[in-house]
Amino acid sequence: MRAAGEGLAVGLDVGGTKIAAGLVGADGSVLLRERLSTPDDTEALFELLVDAALRLSQGQVDIPVGVGAAGLVSHDGVIRYAPNISWVDEPLQQRLAERLGVAVTIDNDASAAAWGEFRVGAGSAVRSMAMLTLGTGVGGGLVIDERLVRGASGFGSEFGHIIVDEGGPACPCGNHGCLEPLASGTAIGRIARERLAGGQVPAGSALHRLDAVTGKAVTVAAHAGDAAAREVLATAGFWLGVGIASLCNAVDPELVVIGGGAIQAGELVLEPARRAFVERLIGAAQRRPTKIVRASLSDDAGLVGAALLSLDGPAPAGAA
Amino acid sequence: MRAAGEGLAVGLDVGGTKIAAGLVGADGSVLLRERLSTPDDTEALFELLVDAALRLSQGQVDIPVGVGAAGLVSHDGVIRYAPNISWVDEPLQQRLAERLGVAVTIDNDASAAAWGEFRVGAGSAVRSMAMLTLGTGVGGGLVIDERLVRGASGFGSEFGHIIVDEGGPACPCGNHGCLEPLASGTAIGRIARERLAGGQVPAGSALHRLDAVTGKAVTVAAHAGDAAAREVLATAGFWLGVGIASLCNAVDPELVVIGGGAIQAGELVLEPARRAFVERLIGAAQRRPTKIVRASLSDDAGLVGAALLSLDGPAPAGAA
Repeated sequence: MRAAGEGLAVGLDVGGTKIAAGLVGADGSVLLRERLSTPDDTEALFELLVDAALRLSQGQVDIPVGVGAAGLVSHDGVIRYAPNISWVDEPLQQRLAERLGVAVTIDNDASAAAWGEFRVGAGSAVRSMAMLTLGTGVGGGLVIDERLVRGASGFGSEFGHIIVDEGGPACPCGNHGCLEPLASGTAIGRIARERLAGGQVPAGSALHRLDAVTGKAVTVAAHAGDAAAREVLATAGFWLGVGIASLCNAVDPELVVIGGGAIQAGELVLEPARRAFVERLIGAAQRRPTKIVRASLSDDAGLVGAALLSLDGPAPAGAA
Repeated sequence: MRAAGEGLAVGLDVGGTKIAAGLVGADGSVLLRERLSTPDDTEALFELLVDAALRLSQGQVDIPVGVGAAGLVSHDGVIRYAPNISWVDEPLQQRLAERLGVAVTIDNDASAAAWGEFRVGAGSAVRSMAMLTLGTGVGGGLVIDERLVRGASGFGSEFGHIIVDEGGPACPCGNHGCLEPLASGTAIGRIARERLAGGQVPAGSALHRLDAVTGKAVTVAAHAGDAAAREVLATAGFWLGVGIASLCNAVDPELVVIGGGAIQAGELVLEPARRAFVERLIGAAQRRPTKIVRASLSDDAGLVGAALLSLDGPAPAGAA
């Protein structure tokens, strides 16, 4: 349940390349904020997380720690697998709790971000929402009836692996046609490179002059008005809309919130996504279609959500 | 919450061609059972439902009525739209409650069936499950943390409209590549007819000798050992598995239950479904993959679930 909450918590949002850390109030305000690089070595990463938590707690005792981690986190607080960090069956919750002597909550990073947006961000007025984070991959978080849905194994809300085009582009997960290789930041770069290689990009387009054809570079070109770059974003947006339609036909949340680095593309992705979505939403004529909006907490969503999860108490819904 | 429950209720499972009605005990036992044909005229249908409820109540007062209806049911008990019944914005809950003078609960038929399986059927030992009903279409019901998920608009768990093959076969909903035209009973017939028309069915196959190439006829041929018929079921099963993988990657239920008339195909559909599913499930190596099992209440699931929903009290989760 959405709790009023008291006190302070440390939030640690651990990604494959960087860590966002902060001291967070019960109202979701970020009182202290740090940004760190993720070390390759998992023991160095552990020590860095310990140091950050101690620093941010500023010597106060009993400040709980919430962690959002880019990986599959099971209900016992073990990171079973992380695509971009060398963790395998890492019992991070237990290790941090023992070392720091405080309560530690750990969850998937996108689930933590969803909780942050639900509690104090774009979803603060609704009772159910889905969040998709567009970055290197596509993450997801799901809140139904004011509860975070973690799934029976803890591996729920992996919205990047909703399969919308079976047999389509390869996904890092091993499948083909998942949403992730079609609508992530990485996908934006791939689509642009394929169009360049296929001779589908007009000679005058800025895409030809990019040093590296990444999602970020394509997005910058699109914002500067390049038509070919905008078409690439529209394609990624189309697939995002198909994936959201599939998700909303299955669980029908009140709101869909889109975050992550690749949402820098803004309306250039969201507008085509909304169009593809409404065309595919069941009963669209019989109801007000679910709103698709941009996240409001920006880079803080994960650390705020992780901290609030550690303050909000009882185990989230969906635990087996 | 899974309630102990007391008393009796009437359950009405209203499909496009037939109605299963019954008097149900709080333990899910069916004390009386009727099967009726669905009239074309919606007023005749209303009177038939009233008569059935009165007959099954046997003059006892305050027997609540639960209805599962093949359509999109909003939270106010209005059937917004039904693909196979002429209802449009039919306020069935209110009309039945006024006419019968008892409490009436109304929900989507597949959601009611899911609740029946969850309470007293294949899902009685789990806390979360998804149910897919394979028939003319593909219906769905979702239980998370012991609560029925109805969705913000009431149009949730339309698993037949999970999009697994964007641009694929046309769905009655207007989209292309939904699970419904790929894995329903109707799909089984379509796949067989397309293979026959495409010359892909060996001359000796029983499929050539069918009067009507329906899902049911193909299933009978498959059970009799016809290899081409079995391949058709395996194709439908493959797509079912893709859809279940997509669903489980998104919400990670403890169990998936498959019901509906087309599940007569049994393992001939379920076995290929399980294979396609496990290949596409995220973190399959890091967890015990979700079990996919056959429904256990057979044709009673919908009426039992509808009756139990009327006894189980408070509004299900997900209400906006």
